[in-house]
Amino acid sequence: MQIIVQKFGGTSVGSIERIQAVAKLISEEASKGHRLVVVVSAMAGETDRLLGLSKKLSSQPSALHQDVVLAAGEQVAIGLLGIALHELGISSQLFLGHQIRILTDDIHGAARIQRIETDRLIACLDDGKIPIIAGFQGVTEKGDVTTIGRGGGDTTAIAVAAALKADRCDIFTDVPGVSTADPRMVSDARVLRKISSEEMLELADAGAKVLSSRSVEIAARYQVPLCVRSSFEPSAGTMIVREEDSMENVLISGITLSANEAKVAIRRVPDEVGIPARIFQPIAEANINVDMILQNISKDGLTDLTFTVPKGDLKRAMELAEAAARDVKAGKVEAAGDVAKVSVVGIGMRSHAGVAHTMFEALAKEGIGIQMISTSEIKVSLIIDAKYGERAVRALHQAFDLHKPHTDLVGNER
Amino acid sequence: MQIIVQKFGGTSVGSIERIQAVAKLISEEASKGHRLVVVVSAMAGETDRLLGLSKKLSSQPSALHQDVVLAAGEQVAIGLLGIALHELGISSQLFLGHQIRILTDDIHGAARIQRIETDRLIACLDDGKIPIIAGFQGVTEKGDVTTIGRGGGDTTAIAVAAALKADRCDIFTDVPGVSTADPRMVSDARVLRKISSEEMLELADAGAKVLSSRSVEIAARYQVPLCVRSSFEPSAGTMIVREEDSMENVLISGITLSANEAKVAIRRVPDEVGIPARIFQPIAEANINVDMILQNISKDGLTDLTFTVPKGDLKRAMELAEAAARDVKAGKVEAAGDVAKVSVVGIGMRSHAGVAHTMFEALAKEGIGIQMISTSEIKVSLIIDAKYGERAVRALHQAFDLHKPHTDLVGNER
Repeated sequence: MQIIVQKFGGTSVGSIERIQAVAKLISEEASKGHRLVVVVSAMAGETDRLLGLSKKLSSQPSALHQDVVLAAGEQVAIGLLGIALHELGISSQLFLGHQIRILTDDIHGAARIQRIETDRLIACLDDGKIPIIAGFQGVTEKGDVTTIGRGGGDTTAIAVAAALKADRCDIFTDVPGVSTADPRMVSDARVLRKISSEEMLELADAGAKVLSSRSVEIAARYQVPLCVRSSFEPSAGTMIVREEDSMENVLISGITLSANEAKVAIRRVPDEVGIPARIFQPIAEANINVDMILQNISKDGLTDLTFTVPKGDLKRAMELAEAAARDVKAGKVEAAGDVAKVSVVGIGMRSHAGVAHTMFEALAKEGIGIQMISTSEIKVSLIIDAKYGERAVRALHQAFDLHKPHTDLVGNER
Repeated sequence: MQIIVQKFGGTSVGSIERIQAVAKLISEEASKGHRLVVVVSAMAGETDRLLGLSKKLSSQPSALHQDVVLAAGEQVAIGLLGIALHELGISSQLFLGHQIRILTDDIHGAARIQRIETDRLIACLDDGKIPIIAGFQGVTEKGDVTTIGRGGGDTTAIAVAAALKADRCDIFTDVPGVSTADPRMVSDARVLRKISSEEMLELADAGAKVLSSRSVEIAARYQVPLCVRSSFEPSAGTMIVREEDSMENVLISGITLSANEAKVAIRRVPDEVGIPARIFQPIAEANINVDMILQNISKDGLTDLTFTVPKGDLKRAMELAEAAARDVKAGKVEAAGDVAKVSVVGIGMRSHAGVAHTMFEALAKEGIGIQMISTSEIKVSLIIDAKYGERAVRALHQAFDLHKPHTDLVGNER
């Protein structure tokens, strides 16, 4: 019998009516004869509410104590789902992190799962009951409650699926799957049937919110077949598959937009060995994630250095850049918070030239200037003026014909 | 060094500001050099909110699952208090029911504490940290979360105090202590310095809400010195002491009013052996708590049988009484939902005649008729028309001079 892990996110259990809908969905899946294991997040808004309470007590709440507060959100959600299933005549057993046990390290607030004991889950399945697991939480070897960071519910589900060697892990969310672009921006965006985990990783990194890159990584590492589906409407969803199961002839899978970008430029930086290190070291030490770095061709021994950081870190990054500029005797430092990153992701890109050319042409036709470019094996990202973000996504979606279904080599529609 | 258990109820931790105030209060107590153990209830309103969510899913939520939902309320409260204490530089360790462990039976929703393991609490105290315990919750031998019913926070605190052989258990609430009457009804009601546990038990039974009778019972059984205090204002509070530590010359300690009463009268009941049993057996089997029973003097082999039940059970009690009346060939059954019970409690009553007389006289002067009377060793309760309830409390408070401080045999003011 197949073991299927199904994870329901915060919007999926965001109200009493939603919890009842999810219970019905689970009862339908269970009637198909699979062995189901359910992982649940806190009701939408609850983690933020609890975080808000703790932030009112302290600007930096002690993480050890805050984890106990936050873990309560998932606890309420599994209890309510258990009640709803009981109403449908379905037996379930609730599992908090410590009851399974999901063992983590003791980095409170961002703990890493180290081991999942499966004995009690398997005993529960053997009993004919559905285990309902509180996502996002674990327990240290010492017995303290931990949480594993935002998006932790997905991580829990995938880690449980890996530990149980499950046949599939369904991530239920409020969208029907992974789309070629955000449907709120591109009206003819399509839901992909399949996508490779490499592409999914790049999409997640580039701003697609449907899955965290950490979840995709873990699923890929433990070869857990992932499916992103909607709990709001019937949907086959998107399967996230290994590259070899993917399709050769698909050039581009999706377009993403990230508005959470800011640009810092340091003018007239002496073009000497060791200077960039002296500039970026303090920024790295401040845990600011530098995404793109661009260095102009040197002129008179001086160059311009431009880089992007998350918008929320701009102020701090500017302070550090200004100090570094004084230190290395560079010119003035300029910032731009009104930029966006548009990315094109596709595994076919590796063997296809011309992707960048198509992008530049499409944007030029719209009169959109390109400020920075970065590429990876399967992704091209461009920094553009924020106000052109959505227009750029639509233009690129059109230019790569993403509204038309692709077929793979054996004729399966993707 | 003294061990003191301090319990903070829902209104005491009902807001961020209140949690900060409680943290300050704890830090002051800790600075006195006692070893403190803190027990906390859910923030005011939270248990009702969680109960409301589960009631929306089911008219009879499965208690096993509901306990997981409800236990989250106390979990949030201890986490927030831990954060607030951390802000004041005070180290605490949080304890959920399963982390101590507080072992209970598996009657979910109304579990009984069977055993409290104290090793981890003592290790925590030895570490110089303050243990903060989630009240109201426990864990079964099997590892399932349980709750121990309304007012369970007090029970947790008293049971922990008994297990640790604590020197005192402070119950912090929103009133300054146990009063001679409800201050909202009687403006010159006084807070008692001391009261015997027997009197407190009768007061709790008779409608005083400051402590549940279950808590008083457990405290008396394990000889835990209890103190009821306010977390809102500095107060010495009321010590609940053993009878021998109480005072002989105090006639009456307090007056209570319970509005949660309803009266059922069965007319023309055959006055034969075995008939009352046939009437009350089905009512007892329905778990309806019959408080007073009054039987008139028989006339022509027939009598009237009157009894009181909690208001919420009146409808069901009427149905059962009507069936029983048909069964024993009695007359018609009448109900009155608009009655109240006013009680006078005092340990001195045992050796003093005239209490009932003073009561009757005081009520007669106010034109208040008495419908039923019941007495125990240290309590006299009267059923009266509900609309006279508060007036009766004021008249009795005045008649027994409760506004004047009493002094005991050695001159200590009570």
